[in-house]
Amino acid sequence: EIAERVAGCFQGGRLTGRHVLITAGPTQENIDPVRYITNHSSGKMGFALAEAAAEAGARVTLVSGPVHLPTPDRVDRIDVVSARDMLAACEAAMPCDLLIAAAAVADYRPEVVAPQKLKKDPSSGDGLLLQLVRNPDILATLAQRPDRPFSVGFAAETENLLEYATRKLKAKNLDLIVANDVANPGIGFNSEENAVTVIDRAQQEIRFAQTSKGKIARQLIAFIADHMDQA
Amino acid sequence: EIAERVAGCFQGGRLTGRHVLITAGPTQENIDPVRYITNHSSGKMGFALAEAAAEAGARVTLVSGPVHLPTPDRVDRIDVVSARDMLAACEAAMPCDLLIAAAAVADYRPEVVAPQKLKKDPSSGDGLLLQLVRNPDILATLAQRPDRPFSVGFAAETENLLEYATRKLKAKNLDLIVANDVANPGIGFNSEENAVTVIDRAQQEIRFAQTSKGKIARQLIAFIADHMDQA
Repeated sequence: EIAERVAGCFQGGRLTGRHVLITAGPTQENIDPVRYITNHSSGKMGFALAEAAAEAGARVTLVSGPVHLPTPDRVDRIDVVSARDMLAACEAAMPCDLLIAAAAVADYRPEVVAPQKLKKDPSSGDGLLLQLVRNPDILATLAQRPDRPFSVGFAAETENLLEYATRKLKAKNLDLIVANDVANPGIGFNSEENAVTVIDRAQQEIRFAQTSKGKIARQLIAFIADHMDQA
Repeated sequence: EIAERVAGCFQGGRLTGRHVLITAGPTQENIDPVRYITNHSSGKMGFALAEAAAEAGARVTLVSGPVHLPTPDRVDRIDVVSARDMLAACEAAMPCDLLIAAAAVADYRPEVVAPQKLKKDPSSGDGLLLQLVRNPDILATLAQRPDRPFSVGFAAETENLLEYATRKLKAKNLDLIVANDVANPGIGFNSEENAVTVIDRAQQEIRFAQTSKGKIARQLIAFIADHMDQA
């Protein structure tokens, strides 16, 4: 089943009256005031989805990690830094009808954040052992609430893409998951184009062929709106 | 001694015929294909210095980590990702008459870079122990070469600024060090303005009052050119 079939179905107003919450970009997890851990993510896919959802008539809240992108028209943007900030901002934005979790959230953060810049010992070449702890799972947390929205996740993987994506769909109780092969340099992190496979609860796989992130976003929003109507 | 005194001394052509090598921006040290460690750095100060050095007539090589900035006119820009890449690019660009190391180089990198995205165990909330090793010291390496350039370092600190900067000046055998108080939110990482103190080999401290990074850069280039003439 090819994405072109749904692309033609897209019409304005499909999400009128709906509140759509979208996360985008990376999160940053401080080691000290200078150093941090983060993920490769330009935020382009999440911002394109926010723009497409607004075009479809939705009221859109976009919770974004640090990115260099302008806010799409008619989108309410909330900037955050860490995964814990992002979760808090999402919880404050609830309830919503549709959650699209496109952010590349850091799974781990340093257990201790040093209040001052860590000094390396100039007399030695010693390394540093960094203890990381798990961050909260934003998508799973929101998808488990009593006011659970229609929940769409993203799986960015470098291998076993569809297997890992299906596992994530089930583990987090999602309605749809968008599988993104980030090992392919032509699509993924910082490129202007993308190609994805969406997996639904029935484990049907729907492929969206490579095109601009803007076009993929409009196709995905139309496809998600169809699925919400059926749900 | 206040920076205004040197600002007036700036004239075009002060660095004509000189090759100036400037590093800028952060470096990124991969944990796996998705996650990495980096430093807060917009690259703005290093890019402003490259622009000012080109205005002063120098041939400028700018070795930059990942930033979102346009290349200044008449500047030869080389983009790199990791600290080891940055060192290799600098070594390839040698010899130079003046080295200004404004990059926020990651002191540490993960000992092992996972070839595929590390999977977290969904059945546990376990953390991750990350072994980091020391990166090569770009500035010290270049300042120890037989064809050693006039060497200017940057010290970005959150406490004990002048003490740490002086220690770094001596330890790395620098001609000048620019001390940057990054704990002050009005200046530092991502802001448009800066205020710095330059320390020379005689441990004289010369303060440059807060102004735009472009103005500070022109003041610093004039000041450095003066010191090179005296050296």
